[in-house]
Amino acid sequence: MQAKVLKNILSVNEEMAERNRGVLDSKGVFVINVMSSPGSGKTSLILATIRRLKGRVRIGVIEGDISSSIDAEKVSQEQVPVVQINTGGQCHLDAGMINRALDNLPLDNIDLLFIENVGNLVCPAEFKLGEDKKAMILSVPEGDDKIYKYPLMFTIADVIVVNKIDLLPYTEFDLEAFSQAVKGINQKAAILAVSCTTGQGLEDWVSWITSNLQPQ
Amino acid sequence: MQAKVLKNILSVNEEMAERNRGVLDSKGVFVINVMSSPGSGKTSLILATIRRLKGRVRIGVIEGDISSSIDAEKVSQEQVPVVQINTGGQCHLDAGMINRALDNLPLDNIDLLFIENVGNLVCPAEFKLGEDKKAMILSVPEGDDKIYKYPLMFTIADVIVVNKIDLLPYTEFDLEAFSQAVKGINQKAAILAVSCTTGQGLEDWVSWITSNLQPQ
Repeated sequence: MQAKVLKNILSVNEEMAERNRGVLDSKGVFVINVMSSPGSGKTSLILATIRRLKGRVRIGVIEGDISSSIDAEKVSQEQVPVVQINTGGQCHLDAGMINRALDNLPLDNIDLLFIENVGNLVCPAEFKLGEDKKAMILSVPEGDDKIYKYPLMFTIADVIVVNKIDLLPYTEFDLEAFSQAVKGINQKAAILAVSCTTGQGLEDWVSWITSNLQPQ
Repeated sequence: MQAKVLKNILSVNEEMAERNRGVLDSKGVFVINVMSSPGSGKTSLILATIRRLKGRVRIGVIEGDISSSIDAEKVSQEQVPVVQINTGGQCHLDAGMINRALDNLPLDNIDLLFIENVGNLVCPAEFKLGEDKKAMILSVPEGDDKIYKYPLMFTIADVIVVNKIDLLPYTEFDLEAFSQAVKGINQKAAILAVSCTTGQGLEDWVSWITSNLQPQ
């Protein structure tokens, strides 16, 4: 996109993100923007979190997709409020889409809102939505060199979840080297290694969330 | 992106793609635009192809990345001409970038040109580059539901390479169901199952390429 056009779009987006922030603060909703490549496990991580926090934290979900409602249907089976956004081709969610989605969620009854972004390691990193925290997922089969190729996403993340660690024995992913590379560009991000298939490491992720939640 | 802005950008891009087509036709260069999510194995597939066609087909590569030159360095070790494009944040290659890159390639000595697009299942599908064929790679760990969530990429592909089939035993990927789903939206695409790690299926991929190459 031409730089000037992009700058204007981002500026309008940031104002709308601030407005979302105001709504969410007034309702006491903590928001995590979940980003990753396609197929890294965003929906699986959200589903695992809902199951582990059931009865303790009231969760809502906004599902962002180019098209289809597969993920929203999976999430709604967990009996939590979910709103589907279909971007109609756009490769990321923007704050205006979130603003309209918030109107359709029972915010008075939500403590924690997950926004599952469109699967894309590039553009979602540029569009603030009004979230409290940005979580990015990197799955083991994608390789430990992705930080060099898509640096912005790794720079802005508050937490980096390395998913599918059950596949570590079958790949060349070097968790230690990856963690060192992250520290080189992002000192603040927590790095958590999990498997949504085996459950390994998920308690650390749940602890990271609960320690960030505002006192109820 | 606003629909009208996007339409104008796409229209300018298509004209430039036609110009690239003219250059490539005049030089007898067959071009494959390789697209996938980050970490699906674009570079690995290109490297494996170079090794298998060495001495038979003269190959060149254009490497597209947000930043870094990791992949271009890997490719250049194979002693083939390679040009690195850094998009500076843009999430896809466009025809203008390719036009400038062509100036820096010895086209008279290239039969087959790979363009490795930015890792992204969304926007690259919309930007023609002047290629003969669009190849998309889906890796097994991404899951067999990606066709429903990112349909455009699967619709426009001339060949769909399912990579990392060595990981099939450790995932729930259903190759037969996936192939049926592809046939529902794209009857023309060849579907090839490969592993760049074990080499399984790569001969089918190489055959697909050589059968498409113009007579030298």
